[in-house]
Amino acid sequence: MTPGPLTTSSAVKQAMLVDYGSRDARFLEVMHQVRTKLLGAANVSKEEGYECVIMQGAGTYGIEAVLGSVIPRDGRALILSNGAYGKRQQQICTILGIPFEAVDYGDHEVVRVEDMLKKLKEAGPGHFTHVSMIHHETTAGILNPLKEIGLALKESYPSVRLIVDSMSGFGAYPAQMKAWNLSYLVSSANKNLEGVPGFCFAICERAALEEAEKTNGGPRSLSLDLVGQWRNMEATAQFRFTPPTHSILAFHQAILEWEAEGGCAGRGARYKANYETVLKGMEEMGFKCYVAAEHRGHIITTFLQPEHPKWDFDAFYKALSDQGYVIYPGKLASAPSFRFGTIGRLYPKDFENLLLIVRQCVQRMGIELPLRE
Amino acid sequence: MTPGPLTTSSAVKQAMLVDYGSRDARFLEVMHQVRTKLLGAANVSKEEGYECVIMQGAGTYGIEAVLGSVIPRDGRALILSNGAYGKRQQQICTILGIPFEAVDYGDHEVVRVEDMLKKLKEAGPGHFTHVSMIHHETTAGILNPLKEIGLALKESYPSVRLIVDSMSGFGAYPAQMKAWNLSYLVSSANKNLEGVPGFCFAICERAALEEAEKTNGGPRSLSLDLVGQWRNMEATAQFRFTPPTHSILAFHQAILEWEAEGGCAGRGARYKANYETVLKGMEEMGFKCYVAAEHRGHIITTFLQPEHPKWDFDAFYKALSDQGYVIYPGKLASAPSFRFGTIGRLYPKDFENLLLIVRQCVQRMGIELPLRE
Repeated sequence: MTPGPLTTSSAVKQAMLVDYGSRDARFLEVMHQVRTKLLGAANVSKEEGYECVIMQGAGTYGIEAVLGSVIPRDGRALILSNGAYGKRQQQICTILGIPFEAVDYGDHEVVRVEDMLKKLKEAGPGHFTHVSMIHHETTAGILNPLKEIGLALKESYPSVRLIVDSMSGFGAYPAQMKAWNLSYLVSSANKNLEGVPGFCFAICERAALEEAEKTNGGPRSLSLDLVGQWRNMEATAQFRFTPPTHSILAFHQAILEWEAEGGCAGRGARYKANYETVLKGMEEMGFKCYVAAEHRGHIITTFLQPEHPKWDFDAFYKALSDQGYVIYPGKLASAPSFRFGTIGRLYPKDFENLLLIVRQCVQRMGIELPLRE
Repeated sequence: MTPGPLTTSSAVKQAMLVDYGSRDARFLEVMHQVRTKLLGAANVSKEEGYECVIMQGAGTYGIEAVLGSVIPRDGRALILSNGAYGKRQQQICTILGIPFEAVDYGDHEVVRVEDMLKKLKEAGPGHFTHVSMIHHETTAGILNPLKEIGLALKESYPSVRLIVDSMSGFGAYPAQMKAWNLSYLVSSANKNLEGVPGFCFAICERAALEEAEKTNGGPRSLSLDLVGQWRNMEATAQFRFTPPTHSILAFHQAILEWEAEGGCAGRGARYKANYETVLKGMEEMGFKCYVAAEHRGHIITTFLQPEHPKWDFDAFYKALSDQGYVIYPGKLASAPSFRFGTIGRLYPKDFENLLLIVRQCVQRMGIELPLRE
């Protein structure tokens, strides 16, 4: 019950039971299929002018690769930030020396179109070259208005390019690269597409990549050079450096299963059913959500820890873990909390079991249910 | 028959058939064991003042993490370079803006202690803060004199720290961190230790890391911040960003198998037997090695392509591949060549089979064997 690495299907894991060389034609065919299917998952294609670049490493590597590769030395990013992942983008820009400003929200709030437009207007034309945001903020579990931000930029600031961290959004929430005016979208193998960790990927508008290549003043890193990786993949169909072959084989199976489940709509519906199961059961026990219902996503849900003298989070975590249910501690600055991820190869039945164990565990602490106000 | 990703044992791959959360106590115990065993493989321990830092990504990521994290803004590296991987270190330093000079050799030569000492002497004390080199250069398959370089530095330039890319050396050639005066050694999961790709690691002298933390002027990357990753692993036992859990589980099994085979001595002996099998068979057919015998390693061997009008490398590659033997094209600037990697879960018998197929394939091209001078 974590937001990744998560529970994958047996077939996904079994796809790793073979060794391929990095130049093996069979492996290159899998790579080709994976890149093509990822474009499809973002509702675009090569023919429409979009590219899929895969890179080794965690999702943060992909974010750093995009920020570090596409923002020119004399460019400037406006980062819309409502949680740990918005802060992380700011940290990356600070380290890389990329000029940026941020609109900071609390981690229970959504980012707002009007704040962005106000900031862009005050700054004047040409000040910001890029806006960067998080699609689904995992910190508290908030869905940001990606479509609205993209369309507002398209209308009022068409030369400002939009970068999206869709780590825990992609594959379960729609993302329309072209229709929504997204230039770069970054996600990871081991989130809603239910692969194993090992790589991240960026869906990119080709014109944006070509522009970055001309204007970025050269890469800020060899390993995390998005443009270099793209050019090499186009020229040779290969990674520049040893690829995570097993992880890619697993992902190939994972994306077939995603398609079979009905793609984004089907996967999203299952996660929503998981979330609703959890929410109903937890609310019946008197647990409170941290995020208001209208901003909440159905990927991960933050519950406030009960203010009860007998409540012991470590014992709670351990009791659940001992029964095979690994949950996620909270990451909030403001309040003690814990989180249930509802993604991965899990179904409402799994969350019903979780709820039974939660109930048992809380009662064994000597806490009466439902919790009182 | 490639230098990685390579052939791994069934048990190594089967170790990936389980999903762990990144905070799961069982996973953290595996991490702890892996880090401890890697220190042991480098003939040091935490008690002796050494640390093992694991990072997601390919080996090059690890090299960039070390160069980018430990060389101060006012430092300077002397890079001893005899192939593609020495060139790559230079490329990383150029991109990151790290001052460096290089001693460049041909890719059939070994690096020499006396050239390094001359360069350091000419530059004067304090000019170079670091020397960086490749242990086993995969480009042509050359073993560089790591011990001699380390000891010469210790004797004449004790304040200059030595960085080693031991990607294809570690685990099959000895590396004595303390006795040989190595401050940083980088290698990868999917080389001689026979794990699957997904992460790299750096064995580091703790005093060097502490010095780097004080003097480096801050990291040059968030993702590839060696010091940050080390501090976080020490504080929480965890990765900073989603770990490649399956790859680490596979590696845990791989390093147990490495220990069972007799560690570096046992693994090295098998690779040497593989190499000797290949060499004897290829020489009998009249193929010539590119590297002189005294400089040659037994990890990968470069053969010159025959100068025969009927020779067709693409057909050769494909014929071998069709029989399940994937070889490695050459990477030399100077001469058409190909390479046989002799690492991975392979035995002399496998190379005897390879030789039979090579013989058949060359004869089918209408080339008489043995090849003439």
